[in-house]
Amino acid sequence: MTWKDLRGGKVAAFVSGGLDSTTVIHWLTSHGIKVLAVTADLGQPDEKNLEDVPRRMKAAGATEAILVPGKEILARYMLQVIQGLGHYEGKYLNTTGIARMATVAAALGEIKKRGIKIITHGATGRGNDQVRFELAPAMLEPNIKVYAPWRDPDFISELGGRKQMIEYCHKNGLKISATLEKPYSTDANFCGLTHEAGKLESLKTPTSLVSFIMGNSPQKAPNREERVSIRFEKGVPVSVNGKRMNLVGIFEKLNKIAGKNGVGIGIDVVENRRIGIKSRGVYESPGASLLEIAYEKILELILDGNRREFFDQVSRKFAKAVYRGEWFSPLISDLLAVISNISHFATGSVTFDLYKGNVSFVKMENAPHSLYSSERSSMEKIGEVSHEAAQGYLDLATVVARALAYAKQTRKI
Amino acid sequence: MTWKDLRGGKVAAFVSGGLDSTTVIHWLTSHGIKVLAVTADLGQPDEKNLEDVPRRMKAAGATEAILVPGKEILARYMLQVIQGLGHYEGKYLNTTGIARMATVAAALGEIKKRGIKIITHGATGRGNDQVRFELAPAMLEPNIKVYAPWRDPDFISELGGRKQMIEYCHKNGLKISATLEKPYSTDANFCGLTHEAGKLESLKTPTSLVSFIMGNSPQKAPNREERVSIRFEKGVPVSVNGKRMNLVGIFEKLNKIAGKNGVGIGIDVVENRRIGIKSRGVYESPGASLLEIAYEKILELILDGNRREFFDQVSRKFAKAVYRGEWFSPLISDLLAVISNISHFATGSVTFDLYKGNVSFVKMENAPHSLYSSERSSMEKIGEVSHEAAQGYLDLATVVARALAYAKQTRKI
Amino acid sequence: MTWKDLRGGKVAAFVSGGLDSTTVIHWLTSHGIKVLAVTADLGQPDEKNLEDVPRRMKAAGATEAILVPGKEILARYMLQVIQGLGHYEGKYLNTTGIARMATVAAALGEIKKRGIKIITHGATGRGNDQVRFELAPAMLEPNIKVYAPWRDPDFISELGGRKQMIEYCHKNGLKISATLEKPYSTDANFCGLTHEAGKLESLKTPTSLVSFIMGNSPQKAPNREERVSIRFEKGVPVSVNGKRMNLVGIFEKLNKIAGKNGVGIGIDVVENRRIGIKSRGVYESPGASLLEIAYEKILELILDGNRREFFDQVSRKFAKAVYRGEWFSPLISDLLAVISNISHFATGSVTFDLYKGNVSFVKMENAPHSLYSSERSSMEKIGEVSHEAAQGYLDLATVVARALAYAKQTRKI
Amino acid sequence: MTWKDLRGGKVAAFVSGGLDSTTVIHWLTSHGIKVLAVTADLGQPDEKNLEDVPRRMKAAGATEAILVPGKEILARYMLQVIQGLGHYEGKYLNTTGIARMATVAAALGEIKKRGIKIITHGATGRGNDQVRFELAPAMLEPNIKVYAPWRDPDFISELGGRKQMIEYCHKNGLKISATLEKPYSTDANFCGLTHEAGKLESLKTPTSLVSFIMGNSPQKAPNREERVSIRFEKGVPVSVNGKRMNLVGIFEKLNKIAGKNGVGIGIDVVENRRIGIKSRGVYESPGASLLEIAYEKILELILDGNRREFFDQVSRKFAKAVYRGEWFSPLISDLLAVISNISHFATGSVTFDLYKGNVSFVKMENAPHSLYSSERSSMEKIGEVSHEAAQGYLDLATVVARALAYAKQTRKI
Repeated sequence: MTWKDLRGGKVAAFVSGGLDSTTVIHWLTSHGIKVLAVTADLGQPDEKNLEDVPRRMKAAGATEAILVPGKEILARYMLQVIQGLGHYEGKYLNTTGIARMATVAAALGEIKKRGIKIITHGATGRGNDQVRFELAPAMLEPNIKVYAPWRDPDFISELGGRKQMIEYCHKNGLKISATLEKPYSTDANFCGLTHEAGKLESLKTPTSLVSFIMGNSPQKAPNREERVSIRFEKGVPVSVNGKRMNLVGIFEKLNKIAGKNGVGIGIDVVENRRIGIKSRGVYESPGASLLEIAYEKILELILDGNRREFFDQVSRKFAKAVYRGEWFSPLISDLLAVISNISHFATGSVTFDLYKGNVSFVKMENAPHSLYSSERSSMEKIGEVSHEAAQGYLDLATVVARALAYAKQTRKI
Repeated sequence: MTWKDLRGGKVAAFVSGGLDSTTVIHWLTSHGIKVLAVTADLGQPDEKNLEDVPRRMKAAGATEAILVPGKEILARYMLQVIQGLGHYEGKYLNTTGIARMATVAAALGEIKKRGIKIITHGATGRGNDQVRFELAPAMLEPNIKVYAPWRDPDFISELGGRKQMIEYCHKNGLKISATLEKPYSTDANFCGLTHEAGKLESLKTPTSLVSFIMGNSPQKAPNREERVSIRFEKGVPVSVNGKRMNLVGIFEKLNKIAGKNGVGIGIDVVENRRIGIKSRGVYESPGASLLEIAYEKILELILDGNRREFFDQVSRKFAKAVYRGEWFSPLISDLLAVISNISHFATGSVTFDLYKGNVSFVKMENAPHSLYSSERSSMEKIGEVSHEAAQGYLDLATVVARALAYAKQTRKI
Repeated sequence: MTWKDLRGGKVAAFVSGGLDSTTVIHWLTSHGIKVLAVTADLGQPDEKNLEDVPRRMKAAGATEAILVPGKEILARYMLQVIQGLGHYEGKYLNTTGIARMATVAAALGEIKKRGIKIITHGATGRGNDQVRFELAPAMLEPNIKVYAPWRDPDFISELGGRKQMIEYCHKNGLKISATLEKPYSTDANFCGLTHEAGKLESLKTPTSLVSFIMGNSPQKAPNREERVSIRFEKGVPVSVNGKRMNLVGIFEKLNKIAGKNGVGIGIDVVENRRIGIKSRGVYESPGASLLEIAYEKILELILDGNRREFFDQVSRKFAKAVYRGEWFSPLISDLLAVISNISHFATGSVTFDLYKGNVSFVKMENAPHSLYSSERSSMEKIGEVSHEAAQGYLDLATVVARALAYAKQTRKI
Repeated sequence: MTWKDLRGGKVAAFVSGGLDSTTVIHWLTSHGIKVLAVTADLGQPDEKNLEDVPRRMKAAGATEAILVPGKEILARYMLQVIQGLGHYEGKYLNTTGIARMATVAAALGEIKKRGIKIITHGATGRGNDQVRFELAPAMLEPNIKVYAPWRDPDFISELGGRKQMIEYCHKNGLKISATLEKPYSTDANFCGLTHEAGKLESLKTPTSLVSFIMGNSPQKAPNREERVSIRFEKGVPVSVNGKRMNLVGIFEKLNKIAGKNGVGIGIDVVENRRIGIKSRGVYESPGASLLEIAYEKILELILDGNRREFFDQVSRKFAKAVYRGEWFSPLISDLLAVISNISHFATGSVTFDLYKGNVSFVKMENAPHSLYSSERSSMEKIGEVSHEAAQGYLDLATVVARALAYAKQTRKI
């Protein structure tokens, strides 16, 4: 699809309000296309004045420009990611990936209400976001199509680089704060930040190049521990330090506490993008990371060995599917069926000491579905498990081991 | 099997030299059983004078007592665990589990040489170690049997608790350093420490109760970063900070550096034991943990998405099988076939800054099998991946997404 | 636990009415133990007169003897096994394993009503059934304990072989039909039969030794095809050849049709028992097997590639867990969450021709959630998928392939 | 890439000798492109005169036309597929997918020898083969590029349908045997046949529409059993009915025996193509299917429970990767590392009776790595496994089961 296919029609543009947004809006409208500029309020921590974005988009030419509330939906989705321990390739907590889903979900009602059939966005042609912005609408509203200026030859030839866009904005009198010198680019929402590109593309650039926004590096964190208690009920965090709050409030509170103490700040990964290419990202997700550590601690208590093994498989698969933008797919519905089946038992209060990036266990209380029993595990006392019973267990285990040895299938020293 | 089955014969006893060892040796020999006391030198960091153990075991009644070298074999096995990212249930690096295998492997030659057909050990009837000490010999030498005093009713009724053992030793004039007040028990080798039982059985006991042996807590670690470079060649670490050393030397060097900076110190887990019961352990493994982080960083560069997904499944399965004492099993041979197939490509030099428990990426160099290319991943330049190619990719991806939507299989917002 | 622990109490005995049942009941009651004999009606095809069993058990000494209805519950459980394609190690459809669960579920109410706290059964000490009869009550009613005569030294020394039991019954005037010459033993319910032991223990005994009960061998099946249509709605079979029937009726009808035509008759497997030992079984499950083939055909239409891959993992894990007697475990609840999430879309009518053991596809109709579209898949026409789009897809795919080649990670010819 | 990029150069064309081949060769050469026509001898059972193909290709305009031997390489690859039980989505044995790899592998030397840098093929833009023909060269020789006429707008607009191609050939005096009436299309090699498209695209077309080439339908198969014995040594089939033959000979012999008796004939599947679209195929692979059944039987004997579970995961992943054309990828090298690690133990002689599509077990002999022992599995005798040992095993198993019940995690009836 090129811009010519849009002529005479109206498109909905997902915009953050930055250089790309301003350029795309102006370029499309100057080609005679009507544009609804939609910005999702995801509590972007790097954007002081989100309410101002629609005004600026109108100034850039948008026919209509709106701000849609997205924090509740993002918090809800993010909690599901945490319940699935959904860190992609073992590290990245999918905070940007899931935010794309929240944006689509938050905006779709407004788009349908206006009868708009085409969505556009500013994601480029090598990244994950273009895939996410394409798959989510296709699964939710298959009749809606997506136009991506970064895959439109005309747009690219005119505005394919940062430099050209800045010049274009200056030439057209569009106010932008972007400058050429940015050392890397940042995507933000109140659950997490992604830094990538620019100088970070070199593997000789240390993580410490990044100026953190959601918290301190461990080096700059306070010199003494801060204690924090989190209570979960049926998988949902309901209070921090004994104070009940709603989910958005929990994330905001934990962002502050964890961020201050350097927890979840500066996760540096070389990952496989959806389209296969490797890329490097540096992430911040203080509240979400701490919540995940707490949730995982509860899982340690409630998952028996069989369930643990299965959950770990589900978790990896889930993290990958979320990353790949499959949030609304049948696969995710299957994985979430497991995750929510388990989260039902995730009740308990866990206390940690935070100190310069470290999360140290203090105690666990009030977990009714816990399988842990100090009585049962003790090596000392003779209780429910008789020491002699082990003999029978081992007799059977070694029959099999010996059968393997006699069949010459076992390894050598 | 009870002690009566051993009468007139000779058994090989795996002994560490502590209270249990002394008691078991004396009890068995005073029942007319000849005992070869075997101690494996695994560089136990809590044991200053390992050479002294055979002397003490002789004093306790052993017919013969030997110290067998085990550090090289442990280092080799531990490296394989690291190459498989073999942390059980996502956290514990199996340092004690693998050490059991090293002990059996190190001792077996001496045992066979003497024609001994029965092995005994001091592991209790609820833990993992009894299983490991039973399975490893059964797989390596199926004709050798195992006698466990802790599953022998006569032994248990007489010496079933720590208190009785201490009294027994005093009564029989056996020199022991053990006292009743120990707040928890510790198992040690130069790759890692396990603290468990005692006060740690309560989930209201914080990790900080433990007095760390292999390094500092983050709080006590130095106030400034220490830079460390590790070079791997075909999966094997060959130098630290540019200085070549053998594998044992690498572990010892990294134990010092990581330990000092609080890395890999105080990992606190509630885990599922092999026999199903949950138990809590606190672990130290500074060198091994740092080595694993470095190895994982190289994996980030060399594993494509398909291989990553498979390796992650292999890794989890491997960690579990190692924990369960299956080291010499066919399953492990299959898993190691994959792990070593991959480690063949794990060449590269990675540099980190260590700071109070944190490991911060500095740079990666000289990794010839790396798939990362800043050129390829860049969002800016038009290079090998054309931005337009993405259109074709997405066209296909959304055909499937829309088919799912039209078949009413997709999720709702 | 030995029979001495039961003295003065009352136990519930799961009995089939055969030699073992008669012997155990008489032996226990003659040792002064009160016994409630419980027989589950599972539509055993090898038992003409199930109502007669309680009478015979009373004659053997039972204090009370009842027949509890179990066909509906077995049909329900079996359907879940089918929806999970739950054939253990790829072949055996778990018909006996699931029947144990149905027996426990069917009987437990009667047992609890009478305040009985101990269950006994006639399963021997090497098989799977002893595990199943132990685990199911432990998960459903953890306060109920299990006594197994086959693990009681006194019982075994007196009655440990088939010969002794027959003599015991004759000596005590108990009517039995068992004779020593039985070439193998059979366990039966209306979903399937298991033949094992005896002559089948030799791997030189062909499958054809077995006299099939639920149907013909392919050789004896009719010489012409029989056409059969099965309709599923949301995963549940609702009609056969256009005629609506309830689930039990469906199984009975398909047992006849498939059995007559040699489908699902004589599945011969060497499998790993729960306790690790290998054993050989020959199975019959005509109706269940045909139902599974039909269900799998519908899955072919509705599962996209991602879901298929996950479902296949779930299915294997499920089959194993069912086999191992974990039916009431949390793991099974997780797996069933996925299976039922998928079965929701399994609507469609599938028609086959059955011929001497073969099931040949005829047609598929009325499957609203099908992803198959002849339009979409056609190689000829230019439709929804443009042939050019493939170019973009391949351009990306080969960028990754080439990166692997340049990094020297690919294989050689 | 379009034909214009090829002008003045030379391309290697993979050709089967049919309508597509003839058309493409003529079209390219008439546009001034030099073409090396390469046909791989894969023992195509539907092609009587393979040696004639190069002559016909020369007549169609090819600059040079060669026949390269491919049967040995295909047999070797196919055996690896069988050792991995590599049937895609549980059914299709990948006979066409692997043949593409054999073609590339067989031809590449000739192509490189001539310094040719571009490969072309006749696969269309929606199928799997275009992906396979693109990935295999990219992984083996990353500097070679692929040109696909079916994705070239100029070619498609002129020759995009079967009808146009036939007319084109007639107009240009090219001899072809193709006619418009073909009810479906067939791809063939001596390991298997794929029938698809045409009338088979309708799910109301029964499997029986297909005229089988490699053997009889069950209905037409002989009325009495044929006995067949296959011996494997270290995973490799070495003799049939006691007669040693090489691998190609084994496949050819078993194709005859199995084909005659209706085994592996008419496997009908709706599968997920690599690009996501569903398609239907009907397959014939008599020899390969029988070999797989025999190999699986040996696996039943040698795989312990842990290894079985892992192998099953490997197998599914392997089948999918083979289907997707990833044969030369690192993932496949990992999977084959496991598969060959296991096949090392696959020694044994298995005998079956074949009868009208059924394969009935007769006996298994001389399998030194077998874990099966009738002694060990017997329910009757007291041998290596004491019936009492089971008590200990169960005591432990039920401690965990009860812990789950007390923690309220177990299911209800």
